[in-house]
Amino acid sequence: MNVFRRTMATSASSFKQAGKVVCIGRNYAELNSARPKQPFFFLKPTSSILLPGAGPVIRPKGVDLHYEAELALIIGKTVRDLQESDVQGALDAIDSYAMSIDMTARNIQNEAKKKGLPWSISKGFDTFLPISNPIPKSAIPNPHSIEVYLSVNGKVQQQDSTELMLFQIPRMLSDISKVMVLEKGDIILTGTPKGVGPVVPGDVMRAGIRVDGKEIEESKIEVA
Amino acid sequence: MNVFRRTMATSASSFKQAGKVVCIGRNYAELNSARPKQPFFFLKPTSSILLPGAGPVIRPKGVDLHYEAELALIIGKTVRDLQESDVQGALDAIDSYAMSIDMTARNIQNEAKKKGLPWSISKGFDTFLPISNPIPKSAIPNPHSIEVYLSVNGKVQQQDSTELMLFQIPRMLSDISKVMVLEKGDIILTGTPKGVGPVVPGDVMRAGIRVDGKEIEESKIEVA
Ligand SMILES: [Mg+2]
Ligand SMILES: [Mg+2]
Ligand SMILES: [Mg+2]
Repeated sequence: MNVFRRTMATSASSFKQAGKVVCIGRNYAELNSARPKQPFFFLKPTSSILLPGAGPVIRPKGVDLHYEAELALIIGKTVRDLQESDVQGALDAIDSYAMSIDMTARNIQNEAKKKGLPWSISKGFDTFLPISNPIPKSAIPNPHSIEVYLSVNGKVQQQDSTELMLFQIPRMLSDISKVMVLEKGDIILTGTPKGVGPVVPGDVMRAGIRVDGKEIEESKIEVA
Repeated sequence: MNVFRRTMATSASSFKQAGKVVCIGRNYAELNSARPKQPFFFLKPTSSILLPGAGPVIRPKGVDLHYEAELALIIGKTVRDLQESDVQGALDAIDSYAMSIDMTARNIQNEAKKKGLPWSISKGFDTFLPISNPIPKSAIPNPHSIEVYLSVNGKVQQQDSTELMLFQIPRMLSDISKVMVLEKGDIILTGTPKGVGPVVPGDVMRAGIRVDGKEIEESKIEVA
């Protein structure tokens, strides 16, 4: 059992060597939020990745810290200028999956939005990207029909199907790869369902993925 | 001579393995532009790095492409929570320098600013970060007193001393390292002096650094 755990951890640790982490914004329908005409995206630094067991998430002083539970794609090969219609190409580009939490300094982000400034600070603090162990591709036969959930102190706050994505994976990978080449090891966060909210130090977040109602062991994140 | 060139190129190629590229925004006084109260910064993906001789810069369709000539710092060690007053600590964190051009899709950036959206797309296209060969630290005794220049088709467009930086290197590294740990190989772009402007395909950009009026050979960028 210990040996197994160590193997898993080593595997997740390769996430730290990712070339980049690209995150899709506003990708689930929500009340009071305009549906974007096209996907938009931003970068988190790889230095913000928090490996399984490496918590806690650090809340910077004065920060209104929010969780955003997201399915992550781990890219398996070089992809340039993918066409949106190339669904098979998009699925072939995925090496594996992970569960992730796009931690966000909401007050800093809101201020940046108001001033037209970059999001990098609000999204990029150390420990702002808790990630699970890698999930084998075979465990997720259809990434557009899984359940993503997150609870805080045992209370479920996010729980929705990836069916509700506004832009599906082929469109995301198409739009990103027309701007930035995707490379083996790159990590894509696919956006968060409704229910984002604040956490304070000591709160315990649990997040994961269910396929046909069944929890995927590797997807489990537990972090204070 | 060929051997020497090859050695330099190999050395620049390590830039592609950088963990992150952090760029300071608006760091020189300009007409019609408010002086920020504190430095702000954003990320460019390492996939946007264009090594010496690897041009041209690709202008995406419909993009108003602008150059921004910037001194780059190459980080030599792990730095967390640096104090602004720790000038020696800041200088010790620098392994070497490079010249760089922060290519920007200005129309996309302006649109993002207006809508409060991230800057990542406007700053992150492939080839949007031409960089020079590494400049040995010893070649730049004082990074706050060198001349950064850029010409387009032989006409000088930017040429200013780094004395004019609004926030100097210790302040930059302090502010960044309080958000994101800095790691060996990370690249910091220190902002651009006045004179940014558009280029179109075929235009030849030349950029570099002068110390006491003397060109630094390794700093030269020539890219179409
Ligand atoms: Mg998010
Ligand atoms: Mg990297
Ligand atoms: Mg710039």
